Amino acid sequence: MAYSIEPIGIVHSPYKEKFAVPRQPGLVPSARCEVILQGEANSLEAVRGIEQFSHVWLLFLFDQNLKAGWRPTVRPPRLGGNERIGVFASRATFRPNGIGMSAVKLKGVRHHNGQVIIDVGGTDLVDGTPIVDIKPYIPYSDSLPNALGGFASEQPPIFDVQFSEHAQQQLRGKQADYHRAVITEVLAQDPRPAYKKGKPDNKVYAVNLFNFNIHFMVTEPIVTVISIDTINQ
Amino acid sequence: MAYSIEPIGIVHSPYKEKFAVPRQPGLVPSARCEVILQGEANSLEAVRGIEQFSHVWLLFLFDQNLKAGWRPTVRPPRLGGNERIGVFASRATFRPNGIGMSAVKLKGVRHHNGQVIIDVGGTDLVDGTPIVDIKPYIPYSDSLPNALGGFASEQPPIFDVQFSEHAQQQLRGKQADYHRAVITEVLAQDPRPAYKKGKPDNKVYAVNLFNFNIHFMVTEPIVTVISIDTINQ
Repeated sequence: MAYSIEPIGIVHSPYKEKFAVPRQPGLVPSARCEVILQGEANSLEAVRGIEQFSHVWLLFLFDQNLKAGWRPTVRPPRLGGNERIGVFASRATFRPNGIGMSAVKLKGVRHHNGQVIIDVGGTDLVDGTPIVDIKPYIPYSDSLPNALGGFASEQPPIFDVQFSEHAQQQLRGKQADYHRAVITEVLAQDPRPAYKKGKPDNKVYAVNLFNFNIHFMVTEPIVTVISIDTINQ
Repeated sequence: MAYSIEPIGIVHSPYKEKFAVPRQPGLVPSARCEVILQGEANSLEAVRGIEQFSHVWLLFLFDQNLKAGWRPTVRPPRLGGNERIGVFASRATFRPNGIGMSAVKLKGVRHHNGQVIIDVGGTDLVDGTPIVDIKPYIPYSDSLPNALGGFASEQPPIFDVQFSEHAQQQLRGKQADYHRAVITEVLAQDPRPAYKKGKPDNKVYAVNLFNFNIHFMVTEPIVTVISIDTINQ
């Protein structure tokens, strides 16, 4: 039996494409992300009292992956991308029903011209991701610090990020510090595909973040930002 | 835009009705619960490697509530049932898209005659609840022990449960100890509606658990089990 679900909002985030999106929420705390409520859910009543919680769960759809379907096994990047495990033993984005969940910091709720906006801490969601539910994070039932995390027990390593002189000059304007912080945190995760890691790599990678097209190289454990070009929209 | 989701399994649990279902997972650890995978998800491949995690998230549908729809505000039992807060500030079961999530202990995976069964610790799910996803619990991103839990910060109080001599005699057979443990843990939560609490109450309540119809009374902080009648099925 099939059920129908309908988004209650969408995410606005700096991540304009899947590449370089943090693999878990909280890895890019500087990023400013918003949940824009829509339809009947766009009401201050629906979020009344939410500010008493420090964190919320966002349930969302991996909408860019839904058409591609799913397979029983996946190759998680954490295992180097060549070992297969079950889709239900992973947080893979290609999965039955395509629902994801992220615990994020709740920064506040705003209301402008009939639009309710929820400000949340750095998410791991692409700009435009449909949100299907928001729930308060309840530590006594959700927080299990002694749970065994299997292959994902350890936080992934964080690389150093350096900016070329050229890239540094391209980052100007009143949001320069903010953009620099987010770019640093995003690239510090080493967003390259798993099979590139631990080997010499002279490839130049490109990623869209905010309205920038950013080029970078990785010489482990250092990421060098080569250029930060503004995309004319 | 609407999306279609399809259950990947259903839950088998002792809870035959919504009344007396634990308000959070883990409150009734003795209960034996199973996730029966179905359709294409019913494959050992899809759960390969899941045993390396101690806990998993079950995403499920509040299927008994879907037809009734939702309202922007709810009255959570934790607030005595008379204060209204936003649906997104609550874990209420009547909510847009009707999706719930529970972190539960993973006890094991079995395979019988082509059927994959996942044994999980005490869930808060009614027997027959449709499961729409299973994800590993990843402590470094899911466990936020310092999160502020608002009105749900404290674990609810646990009552003492006593069995009448008659009830005790009715509990026989090789599963008597197991049934007694689950009945005790379920009733220790005081499943009465919020407006009944903190007041004298001489009502006799009934609940269906396993194949029993159980009658009990509450004289805070003591719950007395009056009778445990077997339902002929």
